[in-house]
Amino acid sequence: MSGAFKNCRTVMVTGASRGLGLQIVESLASGSYSPGKIIATARDPSKAKELQNLAGKYSNIHIITLDVVSQDSIEKAGDQVGALVQEEGLNCLINNAGINVVADFQTVTAEKMLDNFHTNSVAPLMVTKTLLPLLKRAAAGGTGMGIHRASVINMSSLLGSVELNWGDRANNFKWYPYRTSKSALNMVTRCMAVDLEEDGILCMALHPGWVRTDMGGPEAPLSPEESVSSVLSVIGGLTEKDHGGFLHYTGEPLPW
Amino acid sequence: MSGAFKNCRTVMVTGASRGLGLQIVESLASGSYSPGKIIATARDPSKAKELQNLAGKYSNIHIITLDVVSQDSIEKAGDQVGALVQEEGLNCLINNAGINVVADFQTVTAEKMLDNFHTNSVAPLMVTKTLLPLLKRAAAGGTGMGIHRASVINMSSLLGSVELNWGDRANNFKWYPYRTSKSALNMVTRCMAVDLEEDGILCMALHPGWVRTDMGGPEAPLSPEESVSSVLSVIGGLTEKDHGGFLHYTGEPLPW
Repeated sequence: MSGAFKNCRTVMVTGASRGLGLQIVESLASGSYSPGKIIATARDPSKAKELQNLAGKYSNIHIITLDVVSQDSIEKAGDQVGALVQEEGLNCLINNAGINVVADFQTVTAEKMLDNFHTNSVAPLMVTKTLLPLLKRAAAGGTGMGIHRASVINMSSLLGSVELNWGDRANNFKWYPYRTSKSALNMVTRCMAVDLEEDGILCMALHPGWVRTDMGGPEAPLSPEESVSSVLSVIGGLTEKDHGGFLHYTGEPLPW
Repeated sequence: MSGAFKNCRTVMVTGASRGLGLQIVESLASGSYSPGKIIATARDPSKAKELQNLAGKYSNIHIITLDVVSQDSIEKAGDQVGALVQEEGLNCLINNAGINVVADFQTVTAEKMLDNFHTNSVAPLMVTKTLLPLLKRAAAGGTGMGIHRASVINMSSLLGSVELNWGDRANNFKWYPYRTSKSALNMVTRCMAVDLEEDGILCMALHPGWVRTDMGGPEAPLSPEESVSSVLSVIGGLTEKDHGGFLHYTGEPLPW
């Protein structure tokens, strides 16, 4: 991803205390062209020791408290991000915070479905709404679409593809809350792409691969570094042709 | 739809107090081959005067109280349905109850998203889970798939298609909660199709068209009679090739 973010001055990553979010922050901070401000959010920064260590090492990392299912927390974070980025606005919002409330047909409950939906599908919408003025500010006067201007990246999953949930692929990961939340996030992404287009704000959904994180587990084929290297290359290369799309971390389009 | 339901002995329709649900019950009851038992559910049957009138006219209509967002209500209704259908089981469950919590990007809130998701996406899953023993009973020993055996029909919407939410089609109906809930319902449908296949239970999502109901409004092109005539023809003709699919009321496949 060397150089992919060289035109991105400000980036925000939600759910940065561990897993993919933490790796994104680290890879961005240690890259040869690091954004001027990397805003990393965590529900409870006092417990995010690795993120704190990173922020101690790289002065362009700014940690902000954000509980994505609390509107009050979203609004407070929005004010802090505004104070940090000032007139630059926000070039890239990576809605990465997510959970997997594991449940199959036998064990699923309404509460599990609602919890996963709130964090994975509703929160990216509410966070984006709140940060819209900052995204608009970064996009104003620019041309084309991409992270040089303003973009919203929703971390989705191949498991959110209804089309691919069939045949051999459907026999694993019968996770009703998670799959449903990611399908819903894909629709949220598409709706926002329609609405934010006139402001020149790119919006897309991205599958980061199956990664050895707390969520992905030890059997996953990809290391966080491998996934994030590809993810940041894809994000860095986004243009208007990707607006409203759903991409694999390799850059290939995925079916809804 | 004349004859389409002749091999269906028991059918259940949720949200039957008005709109499409009421019309489905009326069309089934007045058809030349009417199912032996038509179970019509309403949140508050005492207020469902038109449904009560129909039940007074057709003795095969059985009204049951069901609030689809209450697990307690779902379980009580499940017991009542079991007592009604006995050894026949349930041949056809039409998850029709739905709401449209209208909100665009400006007006959407987390609560509106969650409310619409609960009724439109989660409730069909929880209702189907609870009625599974009755669906299995109806499917046992049969061959093929369809309403002669056991089937779950989820009333979805073309507005739940992520693929079609683009270009000219996306400029109307910028309803975040509704669109998202129907995309989520499509994933729930697909997940259930995978899980219920081994029991011979067909599961699919159906777009009933844009209909002049309280929800559809007076501008809609289809009357409830026109929509339901097509909808019941499609349901009556379902076979294993439709399992896990998403159909337009004309019978054409829709993209996810």
